[in-house]
Amino acid sequence: MISVDDVTDSRLDDFRDLATADRRPDRPGGRGLVIAEGTVVVGRLLESRYPVRALLGVERRIGELDLSGVDAPAYVASADTMARVVGFHLNRGVLAVADRPVQPTAGEIIDGARVVAVLEGVQDHENLGSIFRNAAALGIDGVLLGAGCSDPLYRRSVRVSMGHVLRVPFATFDEWPNGLDQLRERGFTIAALTPRADAVSLRSLGDFERVAVLLGSEGPGLTPVALAASDLAVRIPMAGGVDSLNVATAAAVAFYELAGKLSSADGRYLGGAADPR
Amino acid sequence: MISVDDVTDSRLDDFRDLATADRRPDRPGGRGLVIAEGTVVVGRLLESRYPVRALLGVERRIGELDLSGVDAPAYVASADTMARVVGFHLNRGVLAVADRPVQPTAGEIIDGARVVAVLEGVQDHENLGSIFRNAAALGIDGVLLGAGCSDPLYRRSVRVSMGHVLRVPFATFDEWPNGLDQLRERGFTIAALTPRADAVSLRSLGDFERVAVLLGSEGPGLTPVALAASDLAVRIPMAGGVDSLNVATAAAVAFYELAGKLSSADGRYLGGAADPR
Repeated sequence: MISVDDVTDSRLDDFRDLATADRRPDRPGGRGLVIAEGTVVVGRLLESRYPVRALLGVERRIGELDLSGVDAPAYVASADTMARVVGFHLNRGVLAVADRPVQPTAGEIIDGARVVAVLEGVQDHENLGSIFRNAAALGIDGVLLGAGCSDPLYRRSVRVSMGHVLRVPFATFDEWPNGLDQLRERGFTIAALTPRADAVSLRSLGDFERVAVLLGSEGPGLTPVALAASDLAVRIPMAGGVDSLNVATAAAVAFYELAGKLSSADGRYLGGAADPR
Repeated sequence: MISVDDVTDSRLDDFRDLATADRRPDRPGGRGLVIAEGTVVVGRLLESRYPVRALLGVERRIGELDLSGVDAPAYVASADTMARVVGFHLNRGVLAVADRPVQPTAGEIIDGARVVAVLEGVQDHENLGSIFRNAAALGIDGVLLGAGCSDPLYRRSVRVSMGHVLRVPFATFDEWPNGLDQLRERGFTIAALTPRADAVSLRSLGDFERVAVLLGSEGPGLTPVALAASDLAVRIPMAGGVDSLNVATAAAVAFYELAGKLSSADGRYLGGAADPR
């Protein structure tokens, strides 16, 4: 733990101007650093395989973290100094920054998974983060990104996901929608979630050996090519006159239902013996 | 349609300083006006039984609405005039304001319902609005408010609910948790949603004649008195190590599952013949 009170200290550069800095690796000057905010998310970062570069926080929040085994400096500053470095008042009181690890390939995720989410065109960072939070809670083994998705490691997605984007494995398909063939070759049923009235109700599905839930963006939904590349279209039964749920909420309902429809479910998803289905 | 360009025009007073005005009827000076923002939500307000007082919008957005049968003035202004009246730039471009109608009593909602949500301590306006949106989509007949909930008609709740707070009937229990007796007397099973490991999994529940889902706030959850007043504690089966879903997301999963467990379901909730369960 290192006290810092000089806002120009170059050791704090990773934390500077967070509201405007664009750290995406695919943008000019972007370094792709991963930012975690608040003790819960920073704690999940510390438990993850992401290489932590540094922490910055007020003394009380830094003190709430388990820093044993953390090989990175923890800078302690006043709330005012933090606000001037970061560019806004941070009421969560602690930040950590990490490099991106090498991500698994889509094939690696598919090999070890029984139920995955596949996203197309999900650009909204809050929806993306919420989908990862819901995936973690409901036992989804990995998230595969098709065309047009935002970066799950963008700061706001990390925050909204409650840090679960750092735990749920994800990968981007090299080809879209042809990458879906990798799923089908390994025995996955690809179920596209859509509000279309002619889709099969989620409630009436049978069991699956392995299943992929294909989710489109709120608004336009899945593209015709993605729908055509899926094995079946499924819908959440909706009350009359209501167009649709938020995409992350719809994802949660589908995750819940489909994770319960895995044949010979081993209890991993279902919470064990108390779940007879 | 009446053009207005004087920002001090008293006919626009209902729309003034929305970011700071507190319109709650239980606060000094609060008139309890209901504010709808954007064409979708304003459209739902116009279709509701709420007595509309006036609309204010830019010409293009006002033009997108069906104003036939609307007995209230529609003021058309420039985006700049609107921003100066409202107090911020409103990118949804149209507002409507309504009085509160007389709300049904808890007993009236219960009499006509088969599945209801009961909330305790849900103060966050976004969570409250999302719960109403999810309730509308998933066929919940009404929402009953126990102790400690915010006002569902607060501006942000109305917006986040996509206007469904204006459609899904709601009422506040006069007594808490004793009001729950009204549900039990009418044959409802009261299922309290909790992350507790000793609760029954949602998946293993049988059918119900009538069911009430009891939901607490994110964080503290249901109070011991509310849990004690319920008939059973139910949980969403969660993957290991993940504490919980957002309360509105958890509500959606519970609504989906419980609305499908109504015995002799008549298709109203389930989307008709395509849903055999």
